[in-house]
Amino acid sequence: MTKGNPEVTWPGSVIGVDVGGSKILARFVDPDTGAARGRVKKNTPTDGPLSVIDCIVNTVEGLAGWQEAAAIGVGVPGPVTPDGTAGPCPNIVGWDEPVQLAAALADRFDKPVVVSNDVNCGAIAEHRIGSGRGHADMLAIFVGTGVGGGLILDNKLVVGERGMVGEIGHLTVDPGGRPCGCGGFGHLETYAGRAGIDNEMRRRTKGDANRYLLSLVGDSQLKSRHIAAGLEAGDELSAQLIDEAADALARVIGNAATLLDLPLVVLGGGIVDRLGEPFLDQIRTSDHFGGAGADFTELVLARRLDDAGAVGAAFLVVDPI
Amino acid sequence: MTKGNPEVTWPGSVIGVDVGGSKILARFVDPDTGAARGRVKKNTPTDGPLSVIDCIVNTVEGLAGWQEAAAIGVGVPGPVTPDGTAGPCPNIVGWDEPVQLAAALADRFDKPVVVSNDVNCGAIAEHRIGSGRGHADMLAIFVGTGVGGGLILDNKLVVGERGMVGEIGHLTVDPGGRPCGCGGFGHLETYAGRAGIDNEMRRRTKGDANRYLLSLVGDSQLKSRHIAAGLEAGDELSAQLIDEAADALARVIGNAATLLDLPLVVLGGGIVDRLGEPFLDQIRTSDHFGGAGADFTELVLARRLDDAGAVGAAFLVVDPI
Repeated sequence: MTKGNPEVTWPGSVIGVDVGGSKILARFVDPDTGAARGRVKKNTPTDGPLSVIDCIVNTVEGLAGWQEAAAIGVGVPGPVTPDGTAGPCPNIVGWDEPVQLAAALADRFDKPVVVSNDVNCGAIAEHRIGSGRGHADMLAIFVGTGVGGGLILDNKLVVGERGMVGEIGHLTVDPGGRPCGCGGFGHLETYAGRAGIDNEMRRRTKGDANRYLLSLVGDSQLKSRHIAAGLEAGDELSAQLIDEAADALARVIGNAATLLDLPLVVLGGGIVDRLGEPFLDQIRTSDHFGGAGADFTELVLARRLDDAGAVGAAFLVVDPI
Repeated sequence: MTKGNPEVTWPGSVIGVDVGGSKILARFVDPDTGAARGRVKKNTPTDGPLSVIDCIVNTVEGLAGWQEAAAIGVGVPGPVTPDGTAGPCPNIVGWDEPVQLAAALADRFDKPVVVSNDVNCGAIAEHRIGSGRGHADMLAIFVGTGVGGGLILDNKLVVGERGMVGEIGHLTVDPGGRPCGCGGFGHLETYAGRAGIDNEMRRRTKGDANRYLLSLVGDSQLKSRHIAAGLEAGDELSAQLIDEAADALARVIGNAATLLDLPLVVLGGGIVDRLGEPFLDQIRTSDHFGGAGADFTELVLARRLDDAGAVGAAFLVVDPI
């Protein structure tokens, strides 16, 4: 299971752990530069948070010299309150309730442990060593299956009382719009997230396998490469769906920029990474890119850092929320 | 000019100054409790910021014992950067450019001077001694001729690089909507601000003096009391305009609450003060009150503190941005 260079340990370094829906990854991270060494990866257990805690411990202890780490940062795919209570994590089977994760892990490791949301870890990694470097205030938006964000003001991650800051995918774009998995309507991620685009594509094509995009995707899940291929082929539906995604992002970004006087918004995640700068241009030139602050905000692509979740979790150990 | 009790000075107290479009007010303020004493008020000069600076100095020096104040806080009706550069101030004739106000006043008084935006001063007053007391995170929204806001996170006012945080009146509600004074379209204040409601009322009544609301307002400016009277009389247009104001506020508040995980939004200003709790209920029950965080956010009326601008400016001296 152990790959990379696990025998190297650095005095004063920290360990960053990325807990994902399918894998748990632990690495040593230099908290000044974000350089990472050592790599242990295990499958995420599917029988609840107690097993996940055991697996986090095993993963970290798989890093030779883990005892030398000054502290451990852990990113998880769910809300995390400032005291390190984490969950529910819908992408981890059985993790249906909040768990006092930071306290439990600190006991097990006998070291300081900081727990954060994984999207926030990605945002802080972009801020410290990625496209946001040097900016005191920024919003990172990651467009994947859903849409998540991380907000940094005055060089600090903002998380909120419930740890829900950055749930930007659930801002309302159109109150009467597409149904969202959360029970709401017209939320950003129903327009810009892959799952939302997939649902809408199926609704509009009504199972007609002659429609180009549906013929590409078939019964599997829509991927960013399908959308890119549709655009490439001049498929009208693909263009419409991406127009609507850009408009929805434009509306939310313009208003967030106005409300928070944001000089920088960093965009990443599957669809953004795939479509790149032309997609950002679509957002910038959208009629929906409103709010008095939109003109001030620079939109840039995320740097797509390696192991951003683990590295960001390590940064948050050094400069906790 | 001097009213109140100017002979009383408190050791350790500060002076708060509220620079308005028509009046400049200075008071001694106890920075612990917000209790104010002494009161000097002068007309705001209309020949540019240098005269306004002179008038601020004269107003403060009108407070007997002003020399004893530890510091001076000043609120002005325009954007203020974190270094105390203030303006343009559209409501003060001739103040068309940014001015290094904090530095100029510190020279004149030979004391520390902190300058802030007046709406931010109102927000911080509500936070410290008003409806926001005890909440670490809140957004204050003041609905007047326009719509302004002040954001407090972790007990600190957030102002942004350009001092534009809280320009909530210029968030876009409908990209194709009503024209805004700033050049944009469909901004919140075109729906919820008195000037926006006035414009829309005139557009819809087309000068027909038989229409109830226009008959009340005539050639003067629409006031909150006109709207209240229209609602009272069952006037359909008044009800429509207020519905649209509530929907626009609901949309912006729901999304701001979601983005920032806000437990509290404090609402004040002319129309809110006049219509009170039933208007807040309209916002809460609006179909537009969306975003996954809307359910979490409590909406409360501002306490309508006396001289909130001057008191808030004084608070910001003690706990500057």
